[in-house]
Amino acid sequence: MNKIISLCKRRGFIFPGSEIYGGLSNSWDFGPLGVEMKNNIKSAWWKFFVYDKQNIVGIDSAIIINPKVWEASGHKDGFSDPLIECRECHCRFRADHLVGDDVWNQEKDFFDTASEQDREKRIVDLIEKCPHCGRKKTMTAPRNFNLMLKTYLGPIEDKNDLVYLRPETAQGIFINFKNIVTTSRQTVPFGIAQIGKAFRNEITPGNYIFRTREFEQMEIEYFIKPPKQDSDWECVFEEWRKLMLNWIEYLEIDLSKIKELNVPKEDLAHYSKKTIDFEYSFPFGVKELYGLAYRTDFDLKNHETFSQKNLKYRDPITGEEYWPHVIEPTFGLDRTLLAVLAECYKEENIPGGEKRVVMSFPKWLAPIKVAVLPLLKNNEEIITKSLEIYNNLKGSLSCEYDESGTIGRRYRRQDEIGTPFAITIDFESLENDDVTVRDRDTMKQERVKIANLKEYLKYD
Amino acid sequence: MNKIISLCKRRGFIFPGSEIYGGLSNSWDFGPLGVEMKNNIKSAWWKFFVYDKQNIVGIDSAIIINPKVWEASGHKDGFSDPLIECRECHCRFRADHLVGDDVWNQEKDFFDTASEQDREKRIVDLIEKCPHCGRKKTMTAPRNFNLMLKTYLGPIEDKNDLVYLRPETAQGIFINFKNIVTTSRQTVPFGIAQIGKAFRNEITPGNYIFRTREFEQMEIEYFIKPPKQDSDWECVFEEWRKLMLNWIEYLEIDLSKIKELNVPKEDLAHYSKKTIDFEYSFPFGVKELYGLAYRTDFDLKNHETFSQKNLKYRDPITGEEYWPHVIEPTFGLDRTLLAVLAECYKEENIPGGEKRVVMSFPKWLAPIKVAVLPLLKNNEEIITKSLEIYNNLKGSLSCEYDESGTIGRRYRRQDEIGTPFAITIDFESLENDDVTVRDRDTMKQERVKIANLKEYLKYD
Repeated sequence: MNKIISLCKRRGFIFPGSEIYGGLSNSWDFGPLGVEMKNNIKSAWWKFFVYDKQNIVGIDSAIIINPKVWEASGHKDGFSDPLIECRECHCRFRADHLVGDDVWNQEKDFFDTASEQDREKRIVDLIEKCPHCGRKKTMTAPRNFNLMLKTYLGPIEDKNDLVYLRPETAQGIFINFKNIVTTSRQTVPFGIAQIGKAFRNEITPGNYIFRTREFEQMEIEYFIKPPKQDSDWECVFEEWRKLMLNWIEYLEIDLSKIKELNVPKEDLAHYSKKTIDFEYSFPFGVKELYGLAYRTDFDLKNHETFSQKNLKYRDPITGEEYWPHVIEPTFGLDRTLLAVLAECYKEENIPGGEKRVVMSFPKWLAPIKVAVLPLLKNNEEIITKSLEIYNNLKGSLSCEYDESGTIGRRYRRQDEIGTPFAITIDFESLENDDVTVRDRDTMKQERVKIANLKEYLKYD
Repeated sequence: MNKIISLCKRRGFIFPGSEIYGGLSNSWDFGPLGVEMKNNIKSAWWKFFVYDKQNIVGIDSAIIINPKVWEASGHKDGFSDPLIECRECHCRFRADHLVGDDVWNQEKDFFDTASEQDREKRIVDLIEKCPHCGRKKTMTAPRNFNLMLKTYLGPIEDKNDLVYLRPETAQGIFINFKNIVTTSRQTVPFGIAQIGKAFRNEITPGNYIFRTREFEQMEIEYFIKPPKQDSDWECVFEEWRKLMLNWIEYLEIDLSKIKELNVPKEDLAHYSKKTIDFEYSFPFGVKELYGLAYRTDFDLKNHETFSQKNLKYRDPITGEEYWPHVIEPTFGLDRTLLAVLAECYKEENIPGGEKRVVMSFPKWLAPIKVAVLPLLKNNEEIITKSLEIYNNLKGSLSCEYDESGTIGRRYRRQDEIGTPFAITIDFESLENDDVTVRDRDTMKQERVKIANLKEYLKYD
């Protein structure tokens, strides 16, 4: 993991956030290569799930929405983690993380009902010493800490102006359900997709870009007819499960590293009847990458209750009115990037006893597709020809022009940033109008006519 | 304006935010067509300013960054508007807006120094009655109201955990300047581009998506050598001015509707030596669309002072060390969309005494490029052929398939959403393998062989 973090910083994928000011609680900024990869993932996802499907449309709703939305969704009361604190070093932890999920599930009822004194007694039994300072019997009783970030709109900071930064993009979809039905001429079954930032006041952010307080989600809410029997929703759920696996394959992530976790009943979110977590073997452990949930009609029904607006769908043919049920595939953008980085990082021994580090990104995902490398820096003709090629390619492919350092060093750099093709322009190029194209993965080199370059560099 | 707002809602471009809960202070959600247009603008801008330039790279920095950044940038102390309130109806206003910019500039010094009593006396003279309730002499003395939205990271809401939602994307660029220089092998002059959300606690948001508390910016900070004389930066400034006009032309906005306002010295922001506002004749008045500012070395210098980190650039050839100066072109994404909507909205009389509303978007910007319309809904062969064409096109162009209603009504709908091409499949199509392609602007129809469709629909 440290090797990946260091490469990402050195090569301009990901920088520690606010670094010159000593950082800010596990926040990260995406550098020139990181932003290209994020954009590539976003547009590929959009193409995969919106453009290629006839019955999915997009939306882009606001981050700050009416706070009543979070009452209806259950976030205001229920979206919290059990926070404990060491009385000595004042470090804060998630009780469920420290005692382990299994134990926590057994204890949960107790902690929900017992007195503060009893809860403190029990937590001290469960967590003998502080993992940070090592002192014994210092933990406070767990309290439910709401994960939504608050802010105030308007000049007066009173409760009328209190709003939240959305902790998920999904609710922005539900509250626009009726608008979409009216304007998009979609009929059930259909889906609404959204990509955007969400914020959670995590007690213990960490593991690089895996858990951060500010992150980006790609979500779909897929609306279906209320099922008459379980098999009605199960078959749609199964279709989405397969689609999600297809997407993971498209990312060229080894499916053997994906574990599908059928979330046990007692761990299900309040709105869900069934959830599958797609877990990936990150270098720091097997952790959730994506999720697929059957949310029933929980959201639309609740928003109808809280907003007093009719959110039922009316079948245009039968006239039947109902709240559609919802299948929700959800994807973390930052986690996608992290999984790809982990998956593609390779150290290889190459002929000549040397080593190289290569990022074997899928071609469509690589931040730079082609590097244009003049063999010599101080030959004017070669430079002119190289810039000509660069200028000609950059309109259709993301290119980098690099004339500094030995050609070997420049290849190493392109390997590290995962550039699929490197073009070298040499003296022969001036005579024969051809160049050397080096393949990142095989390291094989081939002479290609300049006129044929665009065709040669094509990929799907 | 109301016609545009209504069309945008009816057709799925822009919905009132949190509508089912009675809205939230001029917030807006972008529907299926709006999100496509926003994405089209973002990727065209990125291509125009990043990919097509050899010396501009991108970045995507966090929205919540270390609060010291806002001390260094001057936002913590200086980023405020003069807030006044009516004692009777409690409506809040911006004093500068109510008295007018010219008067406010004359009075500014007075209001910065006078006592509260004197300030209140003066404001009551300047604003005789409340524009909302009409009562007389009810205004409070103006006070500086900081526009940054606050939130707290972590469970304790004390001042150590106080952070701000960024009011501009620019500072995320400055604090990463050194990281970019080290990793991207760019040399001065070069630029860093960013697209992202920003938040301002506006006292009086309004004018549709023109002034909202949550908005999206597209900004570039362009770093140049410290100028020896004014002409050194003026020529770069002039290049950017032209580039910005090129971009506006690319949006097909009539340049006669753009007014370049040379911001007078007394109105310049604290960091700027020269600023041009590009104003557009919106339906509600001539208002700022874009800005171009010469920020000198204000930002890097200040961040060096506040962070105590060396932010000087070292010339790789001469070894000279300096703080680069900065030219900043800045573009509002939402305002771009709004200007395009206003520019393209047209009501036309068409042959037969009818009227049509057409959105004459540039082809690259249109949310849907092609509509596939089977002439008849209940002819299986026509439907099969139509879906075949739709499925074949949708991989390369954003398409819509629509079989409901008369063909005339479907054309009207496509005109309203600005679809450049509408394809109709009829009985002849089954025999001759061709279709009718209707041009949105000329309304001319042409028979085109299905095999040639992709070529025919190409645009730049």
